[in-house]
Amino acid sequence: MDSIKVFAPATVANVTCGFDILGFAVENPGDEIILKTCKKPGVVIREIKGDEGRLSHAVEENTATISILNYLTHVERDIGLEVYLHKKMPFGSGLGSSAASSVAGVFAINQLMGQLLTTEELLKFALEGERVASGTGHADNVAPSLMGGFVLIRSYDPLDVIKINTPENLHAVIIHPNIEVNTKDARNILKKNVPIKSAIRQWGNVGGLIAGLTMNDFGLISRSMEDAIFEPVRSMLIPGFDQVKASALEAGALGCGISGSGPSIFALSTADGTARKIGTVMKDQFAQIGIESEIFVSKINQKGPVILD
Amino acid sequence: MDSIKVFAPATVANVTCGFDILGFAVENPGDEIILKTCKKPGVVIREIKGDEGRLSHAVEENTATISILNYLTHVERDIGLEVYLHKKMPFGSGLGSSAASSVAGVFAINQLMGQLLTTEELLKFALEGERVASGTGHADNVAPSLMGGFVLIRSYDPLDVIKINTPENLHAVIIHPNIEVNTKDARNILKKNVPIKSAIRQWGNVGGLIAGLTMNDFGLISRSMEDAIFEPVRSMLIPGFDQVKASALEAGALGCGISGSGPSIFALSTADGTARKIGTVMKDQFAQIGIESEIFVSKINQKGPVILD
Repeated sequence: MDSIKVFAPATVANVTCGFDILGFAVENPGDEIILKTCKKPGVVIREIKGDEGRLSHAVEENTATISILNYLTHVERDIGLEVYLHKKMPFGSGLGSSAASSVAGVFAINQLMGQLLTTEELLKFALEGERVASGTGHADNVAPSLMGGFVLIRSYDPLDVIKINTPENLHAVIIHPNIEVNTKDARNILKKNVPIKSAIRQWGNVGGLIAGLTMNDFGLISRSMEDAIFEPVRSMLIPGFDQVKASALEAGALGCGISGSGPSIFALSTADGTARKIGTVMKDQFAQIGIESEIFVSKINQKGPVILD
Repeated sequence: MDSIKVFAPATVANVTCGFDILGFAVENPGDEIILKTCKKPGVVIREIKGDEGRLSHAVEENTATISILNYLTHVERDIGLEVYLHKKMPFGSGLGSSAASSVAGVFAINQLMGQLLTTEELLKFALEGERVASGTGHADNVAPSLMGGFVLIRSYDPLDVIKINTPENLHAVIIHPNIEVNTKDARNILKKNVPIKSAIRQWGNVGGLIAGLTMNDFGLISRSMEDAIFEPVRSMLIPGFDQVKASALEAGALGCGISGSGPSIFALSTADGTARKIGTVMKDQFAQIGIESEIFVSKINQKGPVILD
């Protein structure tokens, strides 16, 4: 194999009560990467599309190529490689854009090298790439993009990542309003301490959400999708959040929350039709305050990255 | 029916990371109650055994009779009732002693009245009885004693209680050292705020523990049984805690922690033989510092209260 094209999915992290520990992959949007081996040694970025000129072409600054370089160092291969990155999702959107690029890169190079490492082993290289973009490696974006499904980060130190069983017909709808929130800013407005009462309520909900997902209890999933700690603070950066969320719940969403650090908002539902209806009412709400938006509806993506050619 | 004898099980609450939200029932020890209808109206306590004379015989002060009185008021029955309570577990032990009495009382009276209420409906009466003993109604003791099994209290307001699927062969060992910790004191030494980092680690572990239990992943259960917030503080009230815990883990325990607010300590394991071995080494550790102790080994009790005669 001297060329490969890979798709890696967008992800929803900070799933309501599961701040920093729960994320899931969707079927679209996502990023595409093409890797081509060449005679001249070293890794070069030949093209980046869909980034409106905002991403660096320097290989040591781009999330995709950082993960590739780390991988190549680890497996001790010194090859010539041309990289073509096609960003097919909005930037700074809370959909794990940098994580998807990083995952696409490391998954593609591992395929090109004949799968020298397992998916689990790839995780640390993908995380390292993502760390450059956001200052910290968000495993709750990177892990679901790489592994597919609904993923729990039980621990960051040591890293302990678990794929959670979920109901077959769980659908996600994501709305991306055309505004931007910087991840670092969104983290900086968070408090350093939480009242023990709020923390207990939060871990009760985390327990409920995991129990609901693994035991196929949609009522429990719905009741557990609550975040009384971060959402009230972060949602202030998203105009119209309360109204959009209320409209989603009224349209039948199991629950609704900020995707990652926003401004995208996600909702879960039990059927494709309901998810589409929810998307429409959310879009209407944003339109009412003059904000354009884009909707993505899919099942939970269980596959993670896939080879396109 | 004019007489009934009921057993209600002891419980382990505050299961490691699941402070205030996770508890489970064991097969022994537990409390027994006998109710006999009589001609003279009103509820009277005829006998309390096993309490070393420490429990009040006043019906409005005893957890068992408070729950019975509240039940009778709710169902609008005015009967004559004699109550015989046999405490068959240590007092102030962290094994949900008051919860078991409360559950035994309300379960027994409901049987005697021809099951006017469902188990779910009984919960609030049992909680009310327990509230008198500890100042707050610990649903993570009361609910597993009443419902059996491993129980998640997702929320206290409104009360939302979920029975969690658990692996068939999950065994518990409990050791009760012959020292006493007052529940109110044990709560008072806890902080009012927690660092956000610790809280995130705790809810990651709660997610991991629930996922491990429902997905039959013993490794995950083991890794998730960690409490870096409360255990370091509360364990200071239990002499030898660190050594006892270390010995349990070395003997093959999946995990080990304080039962309720202590001083009892519990461990989980995958087999009866291992659980017994763990109990022996824990008992040896306490003996080395001159503390006598009592061991209880059983599977997770899935039944809750049972009618004995």
